[in-house]
Amino acid sequence: MKRVRVHPLPLAALPEAEVMLVVDVIRATSTAVMFLEAGAQALWLTANLEAARALRRNGELLAGEVGGLRPEGFDFGNSPREVAVAELWGRTVIHATTNGTKAAHKAAQVAREVMLASLLNAPAAVQQAARLGDEVAILCAGKEGQVGLDDLYTAGVLAQALLAEGFEPVGDGVQMALHLAQKPARPLLEASEAALALVREGLGEDVAFCAQLGLSERVPRLLERRGEALVFA
Amino acid sequence: MKRVRVHPLPLAALPEAEVMLVVDVIRATSTAVMFLEAGAQALWLTANLEAARALRRNGELLAGEVGGLRPEGFDFGNSPREVAVAELWGRTVIHATTNGTKAAHKAAQVAREVMLASLLNAPAAVQQAARLGDEVAILCAGKEGQVGLDDLYTAGVLAQALLAEGFEPVGDGVQMALHLAQKPARPLLEASEAALALVREGLGEDVAFCAQLGLSERVPRLLERRGEALVFA
Repeated sequence: MKRVRVHPLPLAALPEAEVMLVVDVIRATSTAVMFLEAGAQALWLTANLEAARALRRNGELLAGEVGGLRPEGFDFGNSPREVAVAELWGRTVIHATTNGTKAAHKAAQVAREVMLASLLNAPAAVQQAARLGDEVAILCAGKEGQVGLDDLYTAGVLAQALLAEGFEPVGDGVQMALHLAQKPARPLLEASEAALALVREGLGEDVAFCAQLGLSERVPRLLERRGEALVFA
Repeated sequence: MKRVRVHPLPLAALPEAEVMLVVDVIRATSTAVMFLEAGAQALWLTANLEAARALRRNGELLAGEVGGLRPEGFDFGNSPREVAVAELWGRTVIHATTNGTKAAHKAAQVAREVMLASLLNAPAAVQQAARLGDEVAILCAGKEGQVGLDDLYTAGVLAQALLAEGFEPVGDGVQMALHLAQKPARPLLEASEAALALVREGLGEDVAFCAQLGLSERVPRLLERRGEALVFA
């Protein structure tokens, strides 16, 4: 039997899964998808700016944010819109992101396959997940340990597509997410605290960008660890 | 400004609130309401069966559960239906409940007023909360550290009634809960893991009982601590 669960937060006691889709839709996993879409050959997730700086050897690009904006000495902020117009063919991007990286590390502990999902790559992520295993879990990164409306909504969109592939919903998390997913993406995302924080920084257009469904076929998949970094491609 | 928040889980970093409504709808806070409805003069919440046994001095009634059923030597299980037909005038009930008590202790740390809410007493709980403060938070107990669909739904019903009293929703938790609350109570509760566990024990009728809105005007309110117990009346 094929089953899908949703975990609203990366809590300590996370059950095992064959495949785990990590969601930090505003904005880390949306931006990650756009890095691959722009031609990057690899994406290294790190938990903070210092770790990203320390990992740079030759030619890697640095991405991250301080209060929503590009940090001093970095090549990119955490804006998927900005990445969408970049040409990164063959480059490696070191991407510092707090909540997304923390969730990805959790996922790596309990799942055989870890991928990054957002609305931008939702249909492709669901296809890949369904191909790679019968036990799929969707892990919401949340914001500083709180459940994020934007992430739970996105988990619902992914879960709904998995149901269409013959998966059965298991547990309370997937039920909550499926109820949310009956609403349209943009107003739902815009009501989230993550979106309101971006709007305050003048970055509201990033929210609209993240709300686009199926813009990309690229699904960042965990290949290996490199020190504290997680390498996706 | 009057504001309402919803916390899907009793996590470590819970912000302060004037009034906190604790929800463990299947079944602890539903049963607690029915104890007062049946005439009990006080309800002591304890975290486990041993603590409940140790607190009994003379004439207190013991309530609790093991796998959904009444433990050896206890007067009541954790069934609101069973309590509904009892006569407890002037009695004190010592009620052992894991998730509900844990959440109530959390609430007592951060809120001036702590009350127990369920669907059974939702309208009365909202009236009292609105009377006691402008900053109301609804704390879902969850099940063994996981967000409960049943609790988040009930939080949504409470939040919706608070909006009608002029409260503004703040944060992602209340948005999620409000979306759920647009659905009818019974199928929503029945889809939760807490309900499915009761059905497996042959206690499915308790779920239907807990889904009744506004059966009671009684709102258990935290008066004091007594050792490890929290005293409500």
